[in-house]
Amino acid sequence: MNSNITVDRPTFVTHLECSLTGERYEADQLHGLSRAGRPLLVRYDLAAIKASLPKAMLEARETDLWRWRELLPVRQTSDIVSLGEIETPLIPLTKSGGANVLVKDEGRLPTGSFKARGLVMAVAMAKALGVTKIAMPTNGNAGAALAAYATRCGIETIIFCPDDTPEINVREIALQGGRVYRVNGLIDDCGAIVAKGAAQGLWFDFSTLKEPYRIEGKKTMGLELAAQFGWKLPDTIFYPTGGGTGLIGMWKAFDELEALGWIGPERPRMFAVQASGCAPIVRAFDLGLEHAERWEDAATVAAGIRVPKAVGDFLILRAVRESGGKAMAVGDPAILKAVDDAAKQDGLLLCPEGGATLAAYREALRLGWVEADESAVLFNCATGLKYPMPAADAVVDRFAEIDLAAL
Amino acid sequence: MNSNITVDRPTFVTHLECSLTGERYEADQLHGLSRAGRPLLVRYDLAAIKASLPKAMLEARETDLWRWRELLPVRQTSDIVSLGEIETPLIPLTKSGGANVLVKDEGRLPTGSFKARGLVMAVAMAKALGVTKIAMPTNGNAGAALAAYATRCGIETIIFCPDDTPEINVREIALQGGRVYRVNGLIDDCGAIVAKGAAQGLWFDFSTLKEPYRIEGKKTMGLELAAQFGWKLPDTIFYPTGGGTGLIGMWKAFDELEALGWIGPERPRMFAVQASGCAPIVRAFDLGLEHAERWEDAATVAAGIRVPKAVGDFLILRAVRESGGKAMAVGDPAILKAVDDAAKQDGLLLCPEGGATLAAYREALRLGWVEADESAVLFNCATGLKYPMPAADAVVDRFAEIDLAAL
Ligand SMILES: Cc1ncc(COP(=O)(O)O)c(C=O)c1O
Ligand SMILES: Cc1ncc(COP(=O)(O)O)c(C=O)c1O
Repeated sequence: MNSNITVDRPTFVTHLECSLTGERYEADQLHGLSRAGRPLLVRYDLAAIKASLPKAMLEARETDLWRWRELLPVRQTSDIVSLGEIETPLIPLTKSGGANVLVKDEGRLPTGSFKARGLVMAVAMAKALGVTKIAMPTNGNAGAALAAYATRCGIETIIFCPDDTPEINVREIALQGGRVYRVNGLIDDCGAIVAKGAAQGLWFDFSTLKEPYRIEGKKTMGLELAAQFGWKLPDTIFYPTGGGTGLIGMWKAFDELEALGWIGPERPRMFAVQASGCAPIVRAFDLGLEHAERWEDAATVAAGIRVPKAVGDFLILRAVRESGGKAMAVGDPAILKAVDDAAKQDGLLLCPEGGATLAAYREALRLGWVEADESAVLFNCATGLKYPMPAADAVVDRFAEIDLAAL
Repeated sequence: MNSNITVDRPTFVTHLECSLTGERYEADQLHGLSRAGRPLLVRYDLAAIKASLPKAMLEARETDLWRWRELLPVRQTSDIVSLGEIETPLIPLTKSGGANVLVKDEGRLPTGSFKARGLVMAVAMAKALGVTKIAMPTNGNAGAALAAYATRCGIETIIFCPDDTPEINVREIALQGGRVYRVNGLIDDCGAIVAKGAAQGLWFDFSTLKEPYRIEGKKTMGLELAAQFGWKLPDTIFYPTGGGTGLIGMWKAFDELEALGWIGPERPRMFAVQASGCAPIVRAFDLGLEHAERWEDAATVAAGIRVPKAVGDFLILRAVRESGGKAMAVGDPAILKAVDDAAKQDGLLLCPEGGATLAAYREALRLGWVEADESAVLFNCATGLKYPMPAADAVVDRFAEIDLAAL
């Protein structure tokens, strides 16, 4: 029904490239990190895309993620494993945010988070390249997305998460056919186990940025924003940053769109938002460093951004700096207050990571880093329903004479 | 950005009509049930819509719920209170369902359920008609949707739910600004409290079908299906039936679309799915009755369809019979197995009510009521994340020598 996932379309991947050294790697082969131990970026023949995909043709398609096929790595339609990757809506956050604040509500994607974007792409490529068993460290959402897509196409998954990962995430992964283990440590401890098994040849390593395609999926956030803003871009973007795939991906998307002539050279100021209890990127940003040291004793309610060490640190820092943005840390109290305000004032339930972007926006406004009349997009990366909410326990007895007017 | 909710459009409501007696009521006034105690249906000048809305114009619009403005009751754009009512995707359920089985995944809507469709409409109309305080009985999802939309436009809400309503639903309602009370009873006991307060003039009663506009919102499920199926309709629809608003709404939508000349006289066979532990509609269907008696001691894991007595019973039964469909009951074990199968085989997490439709589909197939080559749409009315999932508790110790190959 949706021709984006039923009809074959031309593809334009030319090669992959080390994000640190620029070294070239062949497309259509299984890759992890580059020889320099850094993420690989997928490169396209953008001139050929420009010649064969008029913008009007793109605009006439259904709006889901697969509308962007020419800018994505999947060659064969038959490798697409879809669970309905809709374009996510932009929702005004007028009262708790401001007149020009929009939330991009990524909780509407399959498995309730934006991890679906990355994983739908990575799983399609894994399927295309013959992978049969995948392992991954996760704070919860990525594991759920991986399990769902892999199960759907018969790929086995083994997923490791920190032992305090919320029950709902662990159960979701298991129910969707993933084998899931709690580990007494943080996500990079889980990552070490995955790396070890990969080195033993037991499975393929799907850690953030350790395979090249999740970033291509996340890139679609930038592509969508451009289309939704009528081929302009918002003035500022607030992104809750763990591994940073989304921020790096959007930055890449903007360059590709400019090469196609669909947007101009203007870019949003990118705000990488972290929690005060785990802010390695912010520390490196403030110190003017190109790489970020591991953050010890990481702790925050926003589990998705509890990432002590990011393999793409330099790519995040580079994008934030080039854009004229900032890396900002916000405390858990400000995060929880932002979640509460958005729900109580605008009726929108954010996840804590989404709450972090609202808290950061408010702080940036206070500091004069953004103006109230500038457009701001806040990423709500997951449905708030996956997270603990405050208790609320009023009771009435149907047999009693209740004074309803007093309720 | 989305012109469906920024641009004024002509509207065509002519009047309201008692669904039992046909008695006429004026539009643009506050109404509850008809004088006969039955639901009111909104009527439109369909000939005028036909003359002013070419199908191509509709098709050129963004695909969200507000694309259908001419077929909806909201007169003023400024009364629309939106949280991003996207068109929900159709997801093939190939392995656990069959080659022609599609799930309409309503969990993607605001607040994670299809209740958003009804409530976004009812709240807009309440706002337009000057309502400032609303009460509602709920099994959880409707209350969450009401709280979100009402909060967003400053309407106060008081919400009553059965005392065993899952914690997540109660908390969601409270967080989104609703005042929520647990009642030692079922949804109709909650409804009695709401009715009492409404009679005292304390609030406006938003019970299912007791105000005329939720059904208009739910109707958009039928409109969307028609568009998604290329202006044909599926052979069969499986709908988890509590109050039945959605089933009644879709049936109304099909008639309106035929009047516009956008679809022909063919209709899907409608399957009203209930749980064996609460199946008043099925009992009435089997007995050939026009109305359904209250179901005593109602109990099922599928809380959304634990509705012992439906005020629109005769409308549900009429639609099911006219369509050549059936009312079917499925047991909790079959529901839970269906949820597990869909997740483990197709990577799709259904809510129990969605699971009920899969269980019913399987049973219908076994009984020869549907053929495997007929298209079937199953309604997954809420995100599975709102419901309890089985525990899954494997642990590994990062300090130990783990035999990874044995995991
Ligand atoms: C809800 C949520 N927000 C943000 C993030 C961080 O995403 P990224 O790795 O792209 O920085 C995650 C990652 O787990 C997440 O689950
Ligand atoms: C998930 C879910 N499914 C189905 C239903 C039943 O919907 P209806 O009242 O339209 O029959 C409900 C109502 O609460 C629900 O929450």
